[in-house]
Amino acid sequence: MEENNFAGKKILITGGLGFIGSNLARRLIGLGAEVQLVDSLIPEYGGNFFNIYDIKDQVNVNVSDVRDEHSMCYLVQGKDFLFNLAGQTSHLDSMQNPYADLEINCRAQLSMLEACRKHNPGIRIVFTSTRQLYGKPDYLPVDEKHLLRPVDVNGINKMAGEWYHILYNNVYGIRTSALRLTNTYGPGMRIKDSRQTFLGIWVRMLVEEKPFEVWGGEQLRDYTYVDDVVNALIVTALNDKAEGKIFNLGGDCVVSLLDTARCMIEANGGGDFTVRKFPAERKRIDIGDYYSDYSLIRSELGWEPQVPLLDGLSKTLKYYRENLEHYL
Amino acid sequence: MEENNFAGKKILITGGLGFIGSNLARRLIGLGAEVQLVDSLIPEYGGNFFNIYDIKDQVNVNVSDVRDEHSMCYLVQGKDFLFNLAGQTSHLDSMQNPYADLEINCRAQLSMLEACRKHNPGIRIVFTSTRQLYGKPDYLPVDEKHLLRPVDVNGINKMAGEWYHILYNNVYGIRTSALRLTNTYGPGMRIKDSRQTFLGIWVRMLVEEKPFEVWGGEQLRDYTYVDDVVNALIVTALNDKAEGKIFNLGGDCVVSLLDTARCMIEANGGGDFTVRKFPAERKRIDIGDYYSDYSLIRSELGWEPQVPLLDGLSKTLKYYRENLEHYL
Repeated sequence: MEENNFAGKKILITGGLGFIGSNLARRLIGLGAEVQLVDSLIPEYGGNFFNIYDIKDQVNVNVSDVRDEHSMCYLVQGKDFLFNLAGQTSHLDSMQNPYADLEINCRAQLSMLEACRKHNPGIRIVFTSTRQLYGKPDYLPVDEKHLLRPVDVNGINKMAGEWYHILYNNVYGIRTSALRLTNTYGPGMRIKDSRQTFLGIWVRMLVEEKPFEVWGGEQLRDYTYVDDVVNALIVTALNDKAEGKIFNLGGDCVVSLLDTARCMIEANGGGDFTVRKFPAERKRIDIGDYYSDYSLIRSELGWEPQVPLLDGLSKTLKYYRENLEHYL
Repeated sequence: MEENNFAGKKILITGGLGFIGSNLARRLIGLGAEVQLVDSLIPEYGGNFFNIYDIKDQVNVNVSDVRDEHSMCYLVQGKDFLFNLAGQTSHLDSMQNPYADLEINCRAQLSMLEACRKHNPGIRIVFTSTRQLYGKPDYLPVDEKHLLRPVDVNGINKMAGEWYHILYNNVYGIRTSALRLTNTYGPGMRIKDSRQTFLGIWVRMLVEEKPFEVWGGEQLRDYTYVDDVVNALIVTALNDKAEGKIFNLGGDCVVSLLDTARCMIEANGGGDFTVRKFPAERKRIDIGDYYSDYSLIRSELGWEPQVPLLDGLSKTLKYYRENLEHYL
């Protein structure tokens, strides 16, 4: 990985105070990049100033919303790389307010790309998409040839947002790539509630020494530790072969929810959970088992997950035991 | 086909003064339905009052835009069926003004579905989607299992619009179906320019006794005559098996552009065309050959195209020879 290609490079990260954005920023700072973060700090989303407590003097922070076209037009100028991570990620929010989801995950993506086309067509963009686009799998593991059949408004809008990126690569030659993330976890994730990931609320409950709830239990899942996602963002941004392409990320293993819960308790050195029947109102959009085939990014870009689930969960729990107050 | 199921039924057709909408209205009137048309009459789109000259006393026309949420909230109430045909269809317009395309093909679709969810969840909806969602085919003929890889903003937004319909069926039980139309032609299509279909401008030139232009020539295409599309809309709306499903339409034959041009001249009893190299700026989004596999709708709903290309073109040319002045 030619990470030193980032030395002195100007980087824009949308969603930069969020979970993945802040971890990416930390890595890029270490590689000598000049990092500009932009984040809306909408309380229901993932942005949190504490995520950059250790690097706050080494990054520039601009608080604005990706829906703010004028702000984005200014911020994309002069940048070498854009890591376009900002998004609305909550299933429930997307169903209750589909228009806000559309504005953020569709319209703002389009206006971000238009800003680059007009003001910085030479920029290199990596967009974070999601395995939610696939919906309920026809086969496992799910590779990039699987049909997209999103099961919520969020998935549909993310699908459009992803494809605007691919289109602007193909039509306008603005170099873009998209990564379809599976369940990402690690220090910096939202743990106040399950808006970002169910693992968040599990961690919170464990750290607060309360039992957490497992919905269902038999469903198979895969998980990527945030450092591995950061690796993927970096190798994608640096490799010409990734331009105009979409890659799945994946995890080091496939685990049922119950086994995930057990693994978390092992990582925590104790704790309890209860099992709850999958709620009826979510049954209709239940995707059953899901795990990714990430062999495309492995063969094309040499990425694969490095951090075993137990290690990743241990690090995550340690982080939140030490920093819980900043995430409530 | 149990067409008499429409007798006395209340129907809303968006894009009702357009090409397909007006032909559908005529058929439904004949079946004894009460038909309400809504159309924005935006000059660049397909709406044209002349399209309903013969049925204007038998339908209700409301001029408003699908982006007008309040108007739609009112209009969907009390209806049995919604044929949701309104859309921005121009490739070029979608690239030059991606936001307008997004407002019409994404946001307005969402707000139409929200209007139905809140005010008329029992309505039956058929949405017209497009083969443009597939982009450049991996294999031919293209069936519904083919990946979606849209090559313009219009295709991406139509993809989102289609999926909102499927989602509202799956999550909220609002019965919807989507048809992916291929090249549709016939009386009532826009012929002023090629905004709706290249066949439009060909017809105009022929009727005006000028040579028309063929771009490229070897590309294979399929065509559906508008009466066949109307048949498909009707069988889809009436069949429970179609709920939550997406079907390709297709044509009676597969023809190169050059042979299409020759067929049109035969249908016209004379005329000329010139062949022009495919323009470089469109080469990047050229999809090459395309034709649909429509065996799914044939086996599930019993639909297949009835009108041979030569007959359809003859009827079309006859119509425009008689009515040219109303379409310029």
